[in-house]
Amino acid sequence: MKFKINSELEYNVLSASTMIFNIHALRTLNQTVLEESLIVNPDIRVEEFTSSNSANRFMRLQIDKPMQLKVSYKATVDTQYKLIDERQEAKTVPVVKMDGDIIQFLFPSRYCQSDKLQRLAYKEFGQIENLYSKVLAINDWIYSNIEYVSGSTDSHTSAYDTITERVGVCRDFAHLGIALCRALSIPARYFTGYAFKLNPPDFHACFEAYIGGNWILFDPTKLAPVNGLVKIATGRDAADAAVATFFGNVRCSRLNVECDTTDSGFVPLNYSTEKLEGVSYQ
Amino acid sequence: MKFKINSELEYNVLSASTMIFNIHALRTLNQTVLEESLIVNPDIRVEEFTSSNSANRFMRLQIDKPMQLKVSYKATVDTQYKLIDERQEAKTVPVVKMDGDIIQFLFPSRYCQSDKLQRLAYKEFGQIENLYSKVLAINDWIYSNIEYVSGSTDSHTSAYDTITERVGVCRDFAHLGIALCRALSIPARYFTGYAFKLNPPDFHACFEAYIGGNWILFDPTKLAPVNGLVKIATGRDAADAAVATFFGNVRCSRLNVECDTTDSGFVPLNYSTEKLEGVSYQ
Amino acid sequence: MKFKINSELEYNVLSASTMIFNIHALRTLNQTVLEESLIVNPDIRVEEFTSSNSANRFMRLQIDKPMQLKVSYKATVDTQYKLIDERQEAKTVPVVKMDGDIIQFLFPSRYCQSDKLQRLAYKEFGQIENLYSKVLAINDWIYSNIEYVSGSTDSHTSAYDTITERVGVCRDFAHLGIALCRALSIPARYFTGYAFKLNPPDFHACFEAYIGGNWILFDPTKLAPVNGLVKIATGRDAADAAVATFFGNVRCSRLNVECDTTDSGFVPLNYSTEKLEGVSYQ
Amino acid sequence: MKFKINSELEYNVLSASTMIFNIHALRTLNQTVLEESLIVNPDIRVEEFTSSNSANRFMRLQIDKPMQLKVSYKATVDTQYKLIDERQEAKTVPVVKMDGDIIQFLFPSRYCQSDKLQRLAYKEFGQIENLYSKVLAINDWIYSNIEYVSGSTDSHTSAYDTITERVGVCRDFAHLGIALCRALSIPARYFTGYAFKLNPPDFHACFEAYIGGNWILFDPTKLAPVNGLVKIATGRDAADAAVATFFGNVRCSRLNVECDTTDSGFVPLNYSTEKLEGVSYQ
Repeated sequence: MKFKINSELEYNVLSASTMIFNIHALRTLNQTVLEESLIVNPDIRVEEFTSSNSANRFMRLQIDKPMQLKVSYKATVDTQYKLIDERQEAKTVPVVKMDGDIIQFLFPSRYCQSDKLQRLAYKEFGQIENLYSKVLAINDWIYSNIEYVSGSTDSHTSAYDTITERVGVCRDFAHLGIALCRALSIPARYFTGYAFKLNPPDFHACFEAYIGGNWILFDPTKLAPVNGLVKIATGRDAADAAVATFFGNVRCSRLNVECDTTDSGFVPLNYSTEKLEGVSYQ
Repeated sequence: MKFKINSELEYNVLSASTMIFNIHALRTLNQTVLEESLIVNPDIRVEEFTSSNSANRFMRLQIDKPMQLKVSYKATVDTQYKLIDERQEAKTVPVVKMDGDIIQFLFPSRYCQSDKLQRLAYKEFGQIENLYSKVLAINDWIYSNIEYVSGSTDSHTSAYDTITERVGVCRDFAHLGIALCRALSIPARYFTGYAFKLNPPDFHACFEAYIGGNWILFDPTKLAPVNGLVKIATGRDAADAAVATFFGNVRCSRLNVECDTTDSGFVPLNYSTEKLEGVSYQ
Repeated sequence: MKFKINSELEYNVLSASTMIFNIHALRTLNQTVLEESLIVNPDIRVEEFTSSNSANRFMRLQIDKPMQLKVSYKATVDTQYKLIDERQEAKTVPVVKMDGDIIQFLFPSRYCQSDKLQRLAYKEFGQIENLYSKVLAINDWIYSNIEYVSGSTDSHTSAYDTITERVGVCRDFAHLGIALCRALSIPARYFTGYAFKLNPPDFHACFEAYIGGNWILFDPTKLAPVNGLVKIATGRDAADAAVATFFGNVRCSRLNVECDTTDSGFVPLNYSTEKLEGVSYQ
Repeated sequence: MKFKINSELEYNVLSASTMIFNIHALRTLNQTVLEESLIVNPDIRVEEFTSSNSANRFMRLQIDKPMQLKVSYKATVDTQYKLIDERQEAKTVPVVKMDGDIIQFLFPSRYCQSDKLQRLAYKEFGQIENLYSKVLAINDWIYSNIEYVSGSTDSHTSAYDTITERVGVCRDFAHLGIALCRALSIPARYFTGYAFKLNPPDFHACFEAYIGGNWILFDPTKLAPVNGLVKIATGRDAADAAVATFFGNVRCSRLNVECDTTDSGFVPLNYSTEKLEGVSYQ
C-alpha cells in the first residue's frame, strides 16, 4: 500500500540549541521509501545518524542563534504488512529461547514502569490463555478506561500516572499498553509513525507486542486503522523514539502532519475479538 | 592489574522459573579474562547470550521444578585503565558531534528520571565549567547528602525517590549520579562490577560519565578505590544490567562475593578536587 | 455488646523520645468504657489529651534516656450500633446542606489523594445510584483486587500507591476506600479500633462513609465482623489517628492485642449485596 | 494598619455545581473587619459556615444550571501584628507540653509529605539551634532554590514534587515550607490572605511556624512585606483552605484582587538574618 506523507513543523528557537528529529520514514524489508524530501528553512546543515541498536533514522541540527525554523518532510512510502491468524500462532516465546535483542523489551523503562504493575496486570489479564487475546484485552481495556484528552499530559507523564489518572494522549496510551505487557513478561515496544487520515492530524504513537515470534501492532486509541501506519521508529518508550528532542530553549509554533493513501483499494482494518488477526510490520 | 574474583549465589527456587544472570567479567580491549569457571549445582544447562547493543555477557537457565540452586563463578581478570589528566581534556563533546551510540545515554530511563531533575541540577552544578569537576561535584554531593543504609531500598527505588528521601545503597547512588549528569546533558551510564575488598562483600554499582570522549568512572559511595574495579556490564540503568533477573518465584538465600588482587603493588586511587584525574576502563 | 480488650506493647527506646499513643477506647453516646486500666512500665508520667476537632483520646510520654518500655491497656467496653436499612436511607446529603464539620472529610489528605482518583472512581463506580450500594461496591472491589500481605507496606504508603501496586494491610485498604469515596464527593474518614478475634491479632483500621446523615462502617479487608469493633479513633487518615507516633528513635519489639466478647449471644454480621444494611457506631 | 481589599471573581459554570469559597477576611482578636460587602451576580443565595476546628469563614452556593457567575468581595480591615524579638524567644515548645490543637500541625498532610523529607531537612537545617533562625533558613532556601513561574503547577502539585522539580507558585512555596518544618518537628500551617500590592495581583499563600508559643508568619516568595497581609484562613494545607472548591464543572474566567493600605505611614517589613524579628498575626 502506498502512502503519501507530508509533515511541516515550525519552531521558535529562543537560544542556541541542538535539535534531534526522528520524523523520517523507516526503511525496512517491508517498508520502501519510494521518494522523500526534507527542506529546512533557513538552510541549516542537517546530519542524519543512526545508532547500533536500531534502524531509526535520526537527524540533528545545530542552531547558533535565535530564529524561526521550519522543517518540512515529504515522502511516498510503500508499506507491506503480514496478516497473521492468531488462533494458532499466538504462543509465547519462552524467555529462555528468546533472541538476546528482544529481552530488553521485557524490562521496565522511563515511561513504562512494568515492575510496579505486576499484580494489577495479573489480576486483570492473567487468566487469558491465548497471547494475542491477552494483549487485545489490554488494548481494549485501555481504550475503554482511559479518556483521550488532547493536551492533558506532558513529557513527564508515565504509565504509572496514566493507570491511575485515567487520561492521556496516544503516547500515554501506548506507554500503558507496553507497561502492562511487560508486567506479564510479554516483550513490548513503542512505535511511532504516520497514521492514515489521523484526526486531529499529528504524529501517532502505538505499541507492538512480541507474539509467536512476530511484532504485532496495537493501537489502544483506535484512532487509525491498524493497517494504515507508516513506521518512523521503534524503541523502549518515547525516550528512545521522540519525534523531536531539544537541547536549548525551543518552542513549537506550528505542526501539520498529513498521511493519505494514493491507492484506491485501501480497506481499513481494525481488530475484533471474534477474528483473531494480527498485523505485523516487522 | 590482576584481580581474583569469587562469587557464590544460592537461591531457593519456589516455582518453575527462568533466571537471567549478568555476573561474568566483561571482555574488552582493556580487560582480559585470564581464566574463569562457572559451576551450577544441580548441573542445569546454561546458555550465554548477548544483545547487539552491548557486550554484556548474560546467561540464562530454565528451572522446571522447585529446588535449591547454587551458582558459583570464579575468574582471574587482568584490567587496564587509562588515567586521564582532566585539566585539559574535560570538555563537552557537543551533542551535534556525538556518536549515535552515545546519545541514548542522554535520555531518561526507568531509574534515572533526568527530565524531572533539570532545574535542580542546573541550580546546584550548572555554574561549574570544567566537565570533570562538574561530575566530581555531583559525585561528592551524593556522597555527602545521601546516607548509605543497607536494605533501605528495593528494586522499585529510583533517582526521583533518592534525591528526596536521601537514603539508599550503591545502586541508588549510581542512579542518582546518572540522572543528575543527564539532566545537565552529560551522557552517563550504569556500571556494575566486582570491587576490590568491598565491605560488606557484594556486587558493586557505580556510574560512568562521558567526558572529552572517554567514559570516566565515578563511585559516589566511595566504598572502593576507583582503580579497583572489574567490569561486569554497562547499561542505561539497573534495568539493563541487573546481576540477576527472575521470571518466576525465586528467593536469594545466600550471597558471597570476593574480589582481591594478586599483584603486590596495588595502590588504591581515589579522586580529589585538587588532582583532576579521571579513571577510564573504556 | 460487651467486649474485653487487652493490648500489650513493648518498645525499645533508643534515644530521648516523646511518644504519643492513641489506644484508649473512645467514649461516645453509644460506646461506654465500663472499666479500663493503663500500666506503663517503668512508671513514667502519662498525660491524656484531646484536640478540639475530635474526641480521640491521645496520651503522651516523655522518655529521657534509652530504655525498654512496656505499655499495657485493658478495658471492658459496651458498644451499641445502629443497624440501618439502606434501601430507603442511602441518599446523599448535598454538600450545600452538609454540616461544616463534615466537609473536611471530602478533601484529600496525606494518604488519601482523592483529587487524583476522580476519573477512575467515576468510571468504576459512578453509575451506581444507591449511595450505600456504591460504597459497598468500592469495599468489595478493594477486597477483590488488593492482596492482603502483612509487612508489604510502610508508614509512607498511600492510596495512590495502593491503587496501582495492589497490595497492602488494613491501613492501606482503609485509605483506598476513603480516597475512592471522596473522589465521588462522599465524605469518608479513617477508623481505628479493636476488632473481635482479629487474626493475626493487631489493631484494626477500617473506614466510615457518610451516608444519609450517618457514618456507616466499612471493612474492605473483611477480616472481622462489622459489628465486632470497638472504636479508638476517627480522623482524616492515619496521620490523624495513628496508634503510636514517635519523636525520637523508637522500635516496637512486641505487640499483642486481644479483643473478645463476654456476651454469649454475639452474632457476627457481614454485609451482603442482597441485604442492604449498614452498621453505624456514630 | 488599615487595608482596603477588593476581589472580583468570574466563573463559567458549565453544569449544576456546588461552590465553596473561602475569601472573607478572618475575624480574630488582632484583625477587625471594619466593613465588608459581598455581591453575587446573579443574586444566588449564599450561606456562610464554619467548622469546629477553625474560625475560617467559608461560604457556599448551589448553582442549578449553566451560567456566568460573578463574585465580588470588598472589605476594609484593621490588622494588628506582634513584632517578636526572636533572639530570646525562639525556643521549641516540647511536644509533650504542646497544646492538643497544635499537634495536628506536626503531622503530614496531602500537600506536605513531611514524613518523606526528614533526612533532607535534618541534613540541610538540623544543625541550626535558634528555632526562628532555622525556619528563616528554610524560608531563604526555598526563595533561593525554587523558581517562581506562574502557571507552572496545578492543584495536584505537592511539596514532594516541588522539592525536586524546583518550580512553583506561592501555594507550592508555602507547602514546601510547611513540609520542611514538620519534618523537623516544628508545627507549621498554611496561611492564605490578601497581600499588600501583590504583583501579579492574586490571593497569596504563606506559611506560619509555631515558635516559642507564637505562630510566626513566613513568606518564601518574598513577594510581599510580612506586615502587609490580611488573613483569610489557616489550615493544614491548601486542602483545608482553598480559595475556591467546586463540585461540578466550573472554569474561572477572570480574577482580580487588590489590596492596598489607606494609612499613610505604612513601612514595609522584611525579615533579615541580622535582625531576628518575627511577625505574628495570631
